[in-house]
Amino acid sequence: MKVLIDISVIPLGVGISVSEYIAECQKVFKESGLTHTMHAFGTNVEGEWDEVMAAVKKCHERVHGLGAPRIATTIRIGTRTDHNQSLDDKVKSVESIL
Amino acid sequence: MKVLIDISVIPLGVGISVSEYIAECQKVFKESGLTHTMHAFGTNVEGEWDEVMAAVKKCHERVHGLGAPRIATTIRIGTRTDHNQSLDDKVKSVESIL
Amino acid sequence: MKVLIDISVIPLGVGISVSEYIAECQKVFKESGLTHTMHAFGTNVEGEWDEVMAAVKKCHERVHGLGAPRIATTIRIGTRTDHNQSLDDKVKSVESIL
Amino acid sequence: MKVLIDISVIPLGVGISVSEYIAECQKVFKESGLTHTMHAFGTNVEGEWDEVMAAVKKCHERVHGLGAPRIATTIRIGTRTDHNQSLDDKVKSVESIL
Repeated sequence: MKVLIDISVIPLGVGISVSEYIAECQKVFKESGLTHTMHAFGTNVEGEWDEVMAAVKKCHERVHGLGAPRIATTIRIGTRTDHNQSLDDKVKSVESIL
Repeated sequence: MKVLIDISVIPLGVGISVSEYIAECQKVFKESGLTHTMHAFGTNVEGEWDEVMAAVKKCHERVHGLGAPRIATTIRIGTRTDHNQSLDDKVKSVESIL
Repeated sequence: MKVLIDISVIPLGVGISVSEYIAECQKVFKESGLTHTMHAFGTNVEGEWDEVMAAVKKCHERVHGLGAPRIATTIRIGTRTDHNQSLDDKVKSVESIL
Repeated sequence: MKVLIDISVIPLGVGISVSEYIAECQKVFKESGLTHTMHAFGTNVEGEWDEVMAAVKKCHERVHGLGAPRIATTIRIGTRTDHNQSLDDKVKSVESIL
């Protein structure tokens, strides 16, 4: 099952600036080889369900490993069986109407 | 790694009423044996990361199996390494202040 | 326009324990007179759009006022024009199938 | 109070393809004059709280006006009192570490 997700990771208990922890997750997604794009509130990732979710778990493990005692993450998940849609497809289908 | 999540599953392409599909996910969480509580916008689930995420995946598979061609899910995920917190603990720690 | 929301407020820069800040938002919802229910990850609120969103804004203002320099909130919002649905209706429509 | 949001709008009861409705919200954000950027799962918007939330409300009104009987939206909201951060700043602060 293919999945597209949008993930936002917020470390708690490490002060106000959280960029270092967000960057760690970016490294995890890069290492995973999965297609991904960062925006101001999170990162879009696409791939097979198990690979994507393994990267999400690793992200939590690595951010805890950096010293964050608590993490609050939000994920939007999209799956569909009618056709194979990529992250790019989603953006283009809207832009074609504008 | 223990995890607490709050999951909201929205099937698309099946009309306005989605209760049948939400109920299917409730059955998945019940079958999983994981502690879970439903509210008007989703379900809180607690357990080991791999077991909880396996239930989330099965929920998507079962809702697609019921005929929903597209699913949009949102999940809030909480992990912490400082102490073992349950869903009940979270509610009680706020209520103790009110 | 009537709206149902599910709101989760996370203060940053105040340490690991955030209950005091979450409780402040509960007070705001109580003062608002809007129907609301807390769960382990957030609070369901129902009412007219402008009143609900005014309470959300006041929640941010009050949590900043308590000393939180940064707030990360997630909200699920539901509106519908086909019929008037309450928070209770949502839960009951799923439970009637289980 | 300045706010940064990430909004994802999902119309229900209109079939599987929802691009037309997402595009309508893009038009609302464009008309609003607020800084905004679309990604595969939503749109980042920045501005004064009241202006941003007015655009969110108008988005719901316009999508209902196009015929969607039900809308499920998720919003991430960020406010901070320690310094004035833009959407661009958020991305740059992470990229500077990578």
